[in-house]
Parts: sequence; C-alpha cells; structure tokens
Amino acid sequence: MFGIFGNKNKKEKKLEKFFNPSSVAVVGATPKSGKVGNVIAKNLLELGYSGKVFLVNPRHDELFGRKCYKSLEEIEDVVDLAIVAIPADFVVDTVANSSGKIKNFAIVSAGFSEIGQVGKEREERLKIIAKENGLNILGPNCLGFINPEIKLNASFAGGMPQAGNVAFISQSGALAVALMDIAEKENIKFSNLVSVGNKMQMSEAELIEYFGEDKNVDVIGLYLEGINDGEKFVEVARRVSAKKPIIILKAGKTDRAQKAISSHTGALAGSDAIINEAFVKAGVIRAENLENFFDLIEVISKSSAVKNENVIVVTNAGGPGVLTTDAFENKKIKLAEIENKTKEKLMEFLPSESSVENPIDLLGDADEIRYSKTLEACNDAKAGSILCLLTPQDQTPVEKIAEKIIDFKKQTDKNVLVAFIGGEKIEQALKILQENEIPNVPFPDRAVAALDKYYKWGKNKKSPDNIIGMKKKESRAKKVKEIILKAKNSGRTALLFSETVEIMKLYGINMVDFANAKDGILGGLNFGFPMVAKVDSDKTLHKTDKEGLILGINNQEELEKGIEKLRVNFPGENLIIQPMQNIKMELIVGIKRDETFGPVVVYGLGGIYTEIFKQVNFLIVPMNKEEIRRHLLASNIGFLFRSTRGQKPFDAGEMVDILHSVMELAQESESILEFDINPLLVYNDKKSVAVDVKIII
Amino acid sequence: MFGIFGNKNKKEKKLEKFFNPSSVAVVGATPKSGKVGNVIAKNLLELGYSGKVFLVNPRHDELFGRKCYKSLEEIEDVVDLAIVAIPADFVVDTVANSSGKIKNFAIVSAGFSEIGQVGKEREERLKIIAKENGLNILGPNCLGFINPEIKLNASFAGGMPQAGNVAFISQSGALAVALMDIAEKENIKFSNLVSVGNKMQMSEAELIEYFGEDKNVDVIGLYLEGINDGEKFVEVARRVSAKKPIIILKAGKTDRAQKAISSHTGALAGSDAIINEAFVKAGVIRAENLENFFDLIEVISKSSAVKNENVIVVTNAGGPGVLTTDAFENKKIKLAEIENKTKEKLMEFLPSESSVENPIDLLGDADEIRYSKTLEACNDAKAGSILCLLTPQDQTPVEKIAEKIIDFKKQTDKNVLVAFIGGEKIEQALKILQENEIPNVPFPDRAVAALDKYYKWGKNKKSPDNIIGMKKKESRAKKVKEIILKAKNSGRTALLFSETVEIMKLYGINMVDFANAKDGILGGLNFGFPMVAKVDSDKTLHKTDKEGLILGINNQEELEKGIEKLRVNFPGENLIIQPMQNIKMELIVGIKRDETFGPVVVYGLGGIYTEIFKQVNFLIVPMNKEEIRRHLLASNIGFLFRSTRGQKPFDAGEMVDILHSVMELAQESESILEFDINPLLVYNDKKSVAVDVKIII
Repeated sequence: MFGIFGNKNKKEKKLEKFFNPSSVAVVGATPKSGKVGNVIAKNLLELGYSGKVFLVNPRHDELFGRKCYKSLEEIEDVVDLAIVAIPADFVVDTVANSSGKIKNFAIVSAGFSEIGQVGKEREERLKIIAKENGLNILGPNCLGFINPEIKLNASFAGGMPQAGNVAFISQSGALAVALMDIAEKENIKFSNLVSVGNKMQMSEAELIEYFGEDKNVDVIGLYLEGINDGEKFVEVARRVSAKKPIIILKAGKTDRAQKAISSHTGALAGSDAIINEAFVKAGVIRAENLENFFDLIEVISKSSAVKNENVIVVTNAGGPGVLTTDAFENKKIKLAEIENKTKEKLMEFLPSESSVENPIDLLGDADEIRYSKTLEACNDAKAGSILCLLTPQDQTPVEKIAEKIIDFKKQTDKNVLVAFIGGEKIEQALKILQENEIPNVPFPDRAVAALDKYYKWGKNKKSPDNIIGMKKKESRAKKVKEIILKAKNSGRTALLFSETVEIMKLYGINMVDFANAKDGILGGLNFGFPMVAKVDSDKTLHKTDKEGLILGINNQEELEKGIEKLRVNFPGENLIIQPMQNIKMELIVGIKRDETFGPVVVYGLGGIYTEIFKQVNFLIVPMNKEEIRRHLLASNIGFLFRSTRGQKPFDAGEMVDILHSVMELAQESESILEFDINPLLVYNDKKSVAVDVKIII
Repeated sequence: MFGIFGNKNKKEKKLEKFFNPSSVAVVGATPKSGKVGNVIAKNLLELGYSGKVFLVNPRHDELFGRKCYKSLEEIEDVVDLAIVAIPADFVVDTVANSSGKIKNFAIVSAGFSEIGQVGKEREERLKIIAKENGLNILGPNCLGFINPEIKLNASFAGGMPQAGNVAFISQSGALAVALMDIAEKENIKFSNLVSVGNKMQMSEAELIEYFGEDKNVDVIGLYLEGINDGEKFVEVARRVSAKKPIIILKAGKTDRAQKAISSHTGALAGSDAIINEAFVKAGVIRAENLENFFDLIEVISKSSAVKNENVIVVTNAGGPGVLTTDAFENKKIKLAEIENKTKEKLMEFLPSESSVENPIDLLGDADEIRYSKTLEACNDAKAGSILCLLTPQDQTPVEKIAEKIIDFKKQTDKNVLVAFIGGEKIEQALKILQENEIPNVPFPDRAVAALDKYYKWGKNKKSPDNIIGMKKKESRAKKVKEIILKAKNSGRTALLFSETVEIMKLYGINMVDFANAKDGILGGLNFGFPMVAKVDSDKTLHKTDKEGLILGINNQEELEKGIEKLRVNFPGENLIIQPMQNIKMELIVGIKRDETFGPVVVYGLGGIYTEIFKQVNFLIVPMNKEEIRRHLLASNIGFLFRSTRGQKPFDAGEMVDILHSVMELAQESESILEFDINPLLVYNDKKSVAVDVKIII
C-alpha cells in the first residue's frame, strides 16, 4: 500500500533516521548573514544538536571555523539527513548524485511545482529519483523541521521550542513560526515541528503514520490546505486516531472553484462538507479556526482523555457562570448534576448565598481556601472534568488560587481546566498555571468548545470501525460497462431511461414502471391512468424547466395529445410514459466524484427541499451496511426512520440497502461521472420507488 | 411614556446630575479596611474626583481626617448623589428621610429582590418612595458606577479606567471588573461603567436613552441577563442605535425553563430566538459570546463606521491569508476586488512571487517599507477597510511595521484593523498599536466577525423604520371578547371550530368550509367528497395522536361509518366534517406570548417540517405591512415567494395580509393565550386556506 516506503517496518526505520539523524549535512551553507543556508547552518551548530554536522558549499573550504565540503559525495562519513538549500536548478542533480549513499533529504529550496510548468517538471524528476532510490524527501519548498528532543533545528526558522508531546505538521511555514511564538508564551511543548511545503512525497498520511508510532507524541496537529490522497489519508488517520488525537485545521473552506456540473447532487456537494465527513470517518478532530486549533492543542496536550461527559464549573462570579452555561448548548459534554453528598460537603463551608448547583458559585469574595475546599469536595463526584473560572475582583488572591488548583490537579484524575478572565491582574497566575501544565483558555466558551471536541474524539475512538473494503462484483460491473459503452458509441452523454432501468435492476433498486412512446402509443400497458409523459434525453436534463414533462394524464385522449405535444417540441427525442406516483416523501440519492476522496454518495430530502435547505448528507466510500445505517439515523433525514407523532416510520433497512447499492455502483463503475435518483419516493406502507434516474457518462 | 423620569428634558437633566455630580455623599463610610463602605470612600477621596465628598456614619465624628456626618439630613450643602452602602434593613428609611433634598442614589447594599420575599417587599417600598419623590435610583445590589471623565469612582471596584468613548452597562459586577482589567491591557477607554444590579428603576432602556444623548459616548456596551420591559427597550434602542452602535451580550440562552404549553408554535418559540429578533428590530449588535463582545468593543470604539462591504487583507504569510478568506464565508463584508490601477501600483514594488490579488501577500520577508507602500497603494481603492495580518518571521521588523500602519491610519479615512498572530515577538508592537488606537484582534476570524457586525449595524441603521403603532379596532376586539367569554362561561379552554371561523372572518382569513356533524349527517352540504371528519374539542388538541381525525372519506357510507366511530370514541364531543384539501404547501402561523416582548407572531413551514427543521420565524409586534413583507422575503420560507426553477411563486401579498391580521388579533385580544393556524395551505394558483385553527383561551 505504501510503495514509496517499502513495507511497514522498513518505512518506520527510514523515517526514524530522518527525524532522529546522527549526522546532518547542509547543502548551501553560507557565511552571508540572513541567507537561508546561513540560518540553517547556525541553527544546526548553535542550538545544542549533538550529532555530526557537515557543511557543503563548493565555493568555500572552511565555514564557521570548520571544514566545508564541495559536495555531498565528498563527505566520507555516513550522512543520515541532508538539508538542501540551493537554487532549484541544482537540486535535482545534487539529490541524484548522492542518492546512493544518502536516503533522507529535507529540500528547503523553492522553485518547484508551486511556480508552474518548469517547476512541475523539476518536481516530477525529483519524484522519480526518490522512487527509484527509495529516498525520503521532505518538501520541496518547505521550512524544514525541528526536533526539540535532540535539539535539532533543521529549518530556517529561528529558536528551539521546548521538547514535549505535540507533533505539529504545517503546510504553511509562517504558521509554524507563529505557532512556535505562541507556544513559547503558552508553554506548549513539541516532539516535532514539520513544514511539509509542496508535499511531493512526505505528506499528511505518511507523517500521521510515523508520529502515530512515535512514543514521544501524544497529539498530532496539522495545518492543511489540501490532502494528497483522500483514501489513504482516511485509512491511516482512522487507525492512528484510535490511539491518539489528531487535530486538523483545514484551510480553503470557501474555495468554491468547482466545475459547473449538471446534476443536482453535484452542485450541492460542497467539497468542504465532504472533508468534514471524511474527518468524521477518520476520527479526526477538526478545528473550527486558528484560535480553536491553538485551544485544542493547549487543552489536549496538557490533559488526559476526558473520562465522561459531565463537567463541573466552579466560579467566583455569577455572570461568567451563566455565560458558561450557555456555552454548553449543542454540546455533547454537559454541566454535571451535583450529587447530594457533594452538595452536603460544599454546604459545610460555603457561605449561604453561594450556589451549590452547577456552576458552583463561590461568590465574589472567594479566596484560595474556598476554591481549594470546593475542588476537594468535588473530587469524588462522577464528573470527568472541572473547569475553574475566575474574575479578578479586588479581594481575589489570584495567584494563591492558581496554586491551589495546581495542588488539586496533582491529586486528582479528573481533567482540570482554567478560564481566568482578565488582563494584568491574572497574568502572573497564568504563568504559574502554564508552568504546571494546567490548560488555560481565556474565555469559558472556548474552553467548553475545546473540551467538547476532545470528549467526542474519545467517545468515537471507542468504536473504531474497521473499514471493510467492498468487493467489486466483476460480472455486474462488466454489464454496466457494456451499457455505457453502447450509449457512448451512439454519441450520448446520458443514459436513456430503459438503460438506467437495466442498471438499477442489477443493483436491486426498484424503479417505476415505464413504456416507450416514441413511435406510437402502446396498447397493453402494465399500468393504468393517471400517467406521466416525458422526454427521455440527455439534452433535456431539467425536464420541468423546458416543459418536457406532462403530469396528471387521466385518459387516452389526454395521453395522445400529450405525446403529440412532446413529439412536436422535442423532435426525434425518445419519449416515455410512466404511471403517476402519489407522493408521500421525496428523497434524493446520488454520486459525486470528489477530487480528493473519490466517489461520495449523497443523500437527503428531495423535491424543493433539496435546494432550499441545502442539507444533503455524504457517505465516504467504502462503508458497510451497519455504518450506513448509523449514518442514516444520525443524518438530517434520520427523523423519517423514527416514529414521530402518529407517523409510521419509513423503512431504514430498505434505505440502507439502496444507499449500499449506490455505493457499490459508484465503486464498480468509474465511467459514471454523475448519478442521481431524484426523486426516490419512499412510503411507510409500501416499497420505495425511483422515479427519475440520471446517469451522466 | 417614561413616567418615572417625567418628561424627556427633565429626565436628561436628572441623570446628568446623577452621572456628573458636583457633590457625593457615602452612607456607610467606614475605617474598616476591606469593607465596601471603606473602599467606596477611598475611591472617592483618592482617585482624583474634584467634587465635594461627604462621609456619613452615625458611629464616627471624623473619618479619613474629615468630618463624618450622622445622617444625610445633617449635611447642609447640596448633595447631588448619595451612595448607600449600609445593611439592607436601614436603606429604605435612609432614602425616604433624605428624599426631599437628594434625588440621586446609588444603592450598593444587597438584600433586596435577589434574596426572596423579604427583600422583594423591601424593594417594592423603595420603588414607591422613588416614584413619589422623583428619585433616580441605581441598583440596589450593584457595584455602583465609575465616570472616568471626572475621576469619579462611585463603586467598590478599585482603580480608575482611562476616560474615553465607551459606556458599559453591566448586570454582573464581576464582569465589569474583569472588563476593566482587560480594558487596561487593551487600551479601551470608558465614558462610564455602570453596574445596574437589580435594575429596580434604572434599567437598560433608561441608560441607553441617557448615553444615547451623551456626546462623550460613541459606543454603548451592555451585559444583560434579562430585559425589564421589552417594548420600551425595542423602542429606545431602535432610536438610539440609529445614532450610535449598541452592543449587547445577552446571557441565559439556554434557559429553557418554559412552561409546558400545548400548541406547536408555543413549544417551538425559544425565547432566545425571540430576543434575537427583537435585537434585529432594535438595530442592536448582538455579541456571540464574551470574547466577541470584547472584540466588538475593541473594534468599534476605535474605528469610525464601516464605509462599505469591501475589505482588503494584507499579509506576510499565505496560510493565515487563506484562513482569513475562509472567515468571510457567510459574511456581509467581503474580500474586495483589487482594481487594476491598484494592482499596477503594487506590481511596481512587490516581488514577482507576491500576490496582488486579495489577500495581498507581501511574502515572508516583507519589511516595513513593503507594508507601508502597499497600504499607500491601496488608499485610493474603493474598499472601506484594510485588515493587516502579520506573523513574526525571523526577518520581520514587527514594531517598525506597526509604526507604518499607525502612520498610514493618520492619513486615511479607511478603517484599519490589525490581526498579528504570535506570542512574545509581537507584544511590543501590540502595545504601540494600542496606544495609537489601532484596533487589534488576535485572530483574523475574530477581526472579520467583529467588522462584519459593525458593517451590518451601519447598513441597517441607514433605514431606521419608524415603528408604527397598530390601531386597535375596538368593535372587532369587542366581538372577539364576546365569543371568548361565551366559551369560557361554558367551561371550555379552547374555542370550537365554528367560533374560530367567526373570528377568522373578522380578520379576513379564509377558512376551510365545514359542517357540524354531532347530531346527525347533514344533507345539503356546500362541498362534496372526499371529506375529512374530526373531533372538535379542547380535550383533543393533537387529533392525529388520538385517532380523532379521519381523512379521505369518499362516499356517504364511509362518512356515516366515520362519524359513528368518532361518536363512540369521543362521546359527547362536537364533531365536524370538512372538504378534504389537496396539499401544495403547508405553513404554520401562530401567536406566542413572550414574557419580555409580549405577543409575537410565529410563522414557518408546516406539516412535519415544522418540527423537523425547527426553523420558525418571529415577528415582534407591532409591524407595518412593509416591514412584514421584508421579513417574510428574508425568512426561511422566503423562497416560496420567489420564482424557483419552474415553480410559480406563492402570493407574498396574501401572506403578508394574513400575518398582519394575526398580529392585529394578537394585539386586540389579550385573552387569547395561544393561537395557531396549522396547517395554512397555500397555493400558487388559488387562495390560501386555513384548515385547522386552534385558539386557547
């Protein structure tokens, strides 16, 4: 599966050396201050890295008081990692010439696929060399990486973050730099910071895989603008996120640069919603924005997994308590019910005006003793987390309270978070809290939001479904292929109704009865009035727009008139008649081909509601029926399959079968560009029926 | 309208003295450190207030080296304001005894309505004294207030914020204290900070009114947990927000402690959604949460109104640029199209790899000159705002760039905002920016969100509708009253169908035909088959639940059988028959009585969609038809009244008439507790018809 890295064990070893090299060479080291090659050389030499460092630059014999090599080949020692910071023109040859000996490269140089055709070709050559020689290449066009554990700064960003448990992978170098600066202030500690640049070869999937195995890493955070291989990403991330949280900030939500497509489902399927769905499937925590991303790293890197959904809030101010209560709206975590025995304990020492309901209000004059006793009283409560709020009133001993919270954290297995609200008056306390790894988020809403995502991750991870690959049924696939080929050969881009009926039959999807009416009205129909007459053509996809659809035909005369009208308006086109269906509930089911994630099954309310509410649901292929069922019931049409006030529910099993069949079709027939059933009429007293099926080839 | 303050001019004068007193007395001044009366006395004496200060405490002759009075009456000078900080037991008499001479009181003492019945009675007495003597009373149970302009700290919070343009009104004292601390760090300056406590008399409406007239105030910010008088609030806020922005953080969103009510509309009408609607009507900016509240104050207090929706983003980092682009999703403000002449200017000096599209990417090595030239090149652009992003790369001269932004701000009429992303590396620059009143919001999403709300405020304020009071039609109201009275007298809590038909006729709402069928099947009906038979009873409100509704009756035999069945199942109840309607689109229209805002008209999709999407719309009474039309078209059922793909639109005028009629009914008949039309069937080819109308009395 991971060809470029060979088998799994081999791969791990390889990246192990990449990120923990015993010797590093810098190609392009230079004495010119401010130049990239200069910064990297200094970062390697001056920040405490204890491995061997080789400087390479053909124009120097000596640099920084040590020998300078003409080329990588000239170095006789083993070089575990080469950092390449020379003009793009020379990069490919440099790598090629040393590829026999050196297997790991961080290519900092720009001038590759990001600059257009010339660069793309250059990158392509590099890729081939990497593949042929089994190289690991980071970049090109990246900042490099930093491994604080061994004090290795193999990048041109200055500084050395504290060593810790966060692996951060960034598609933006600038963001990595900003994060380092914020992290220093917030006491966030890193196992690795990796700038991935063009992600030519080492991409999110490979790095998630590697850091998933790295024992120093508790949390993997990624800033991504794109995903290289959707299927692989989901497979790897799903496996790793069952062990440790993966937090992703995915930029480019508003990138709506989608080709104009003719089907409803296509137009509805915003790629960002599909990414959401893929992240859910992969068990990834998606950050809402940059701030939420930092909050998540702060909270998750400093806490153990959230034990349960119950949270106790302790506050010295009513207003922020109420606001925090609001923050729990639409969350999975919730304000814990305070148990009676805890209340009794609290009432022993709290003033009578205090509240022993959650949020527990210690009143404005609360001192460190009141906080401390309250936390202790709550230690036996069933809640998994405690959030301590504080506003700095004049009489509030802020630092002392912080110390008490730290003391409590040492003796409890609950998550303890802090949201102190203020300016200078709380600064010193925040410093103390940070030094002691108590996560602090400045506003209670943000603390609740981050904790909620962490909780949901833990809950989902408990049931990591194995992705069951779907088996292609080759004979069926072949039949579909033949039908499509025939249509293509006759110059059509859409299938005729009769052809879609054939295909739907292969997949067990019930379609409305029909008869061809192009050349004359048939006698001996299987169905009676009322009927529908319509044009069946790839040129008339939106039938209602162009009056290619006649509803409510009640007798032979109307039928003949209707067919005649269609024949005049759409000369030469195929015409069909169908029995008119009574409508109970219209759904839509379709296939969208996503650039990143491949075929995606789309479903939702049909009729006008599809476009009005724009709330379709996506299934990332593949899924088994059990997964589809869970998805369906949790979706925005889930209500149809539960008993609502006096309504008999629709048949979930039948719907799951249909969705599964469409998923099989999507996998088996790549030459279907677009597909939708619209409407799929469902009933709670008879079999559902597909009325109109559009297959674009 | 504002009885307690007399006429408008008189009121202004009165509160003028309250907030700008020339002399202040503290009742309860004490030498005991840490006590409220001690803090207030010190705040008055030591923070620079230049007016006269009188200390009152019967137990002392001298305090802080000055005379101490036994009582307020003993003071011979004029006292503009008395601050009362004595036990609750003594407050009422203290105020009463001095109310001839002193008209303004800030009552800090707790022990009033917040503690239950005893306190409530105490507060009631205070209220009466205030009314009888024309007093202005702040609190009770508040922190007091601070007027930095005259260095008056009439509160027991320490410190003196900088004098400026923000009036802050808080229902939480603790939050006011936290805000002061944050404000000091962020350089936010205040005209006033007012803690309103129990809001016995001086409430949001009175204070908005006063600060609306105050020339020192550019922005009014409020933290509210409740609103005293909804109608008055909307009236005042709407008037004031047409002049200056009002920002409200309303807590208590999740307070779902609503009585169980039997109608659909009642259960759906979350009070928070109604507050939202009222804020829209009042032109108020609603803060999403505490952080957004501070952001809004930061941005709005330091900027002039946003000229147009176009925003230019300047960045030295691609990633944050992409994230900022995402932040514009679903916003009214948008990334400006960069005009060609601006692009040309930019291309003269920017490196070729830069982007002159918006966001303008100056690249990671951008220095202050590149920022400065870019800002200047954009000065002629049509965009109303410029947002400057920055991440602190190693080579970034952060402070110098801040200085250039400040220079540019001095020469432009555009709004200039800053979102620097980092930790220690940006701290000094932020200080410089704050000192120079450049609004800084730490993350671009937050900057965009705050600017968007500010822009929308400016746009809405341009068209401040006058609220046109609706005239009650007395004769109609009287007729409704009679019908209701009759029903009440016969022991019913709901009207019969025949009675609702009478009322709907008075309001011009078309109802489905019907016939009574209790005592036998009528001949000579006005309508034919198919028919519907149902129970018409206040005991069977949800007919489908209890099989009190028989649909699709196709002939006389079925009708007789149906009626017989209902008669057996619902002995003694009224039974009716109606013609069965074909359904095109089901809507729901109702009345909900909100505790704060009075009658509210609710409308939305009917049938199963009402409960599924829970997306009803609210109209705050009163409104004229033009306002209703605008609301309807912008609502979630607005799509029905526009031409959608091949669909003839429904009649907006007819729907506006119905909503207006229901609004009139809500105003004219206060004894209607709940009302809903469900379903209201609307068609695009014939008159709409109300099928079922429920009136609970």
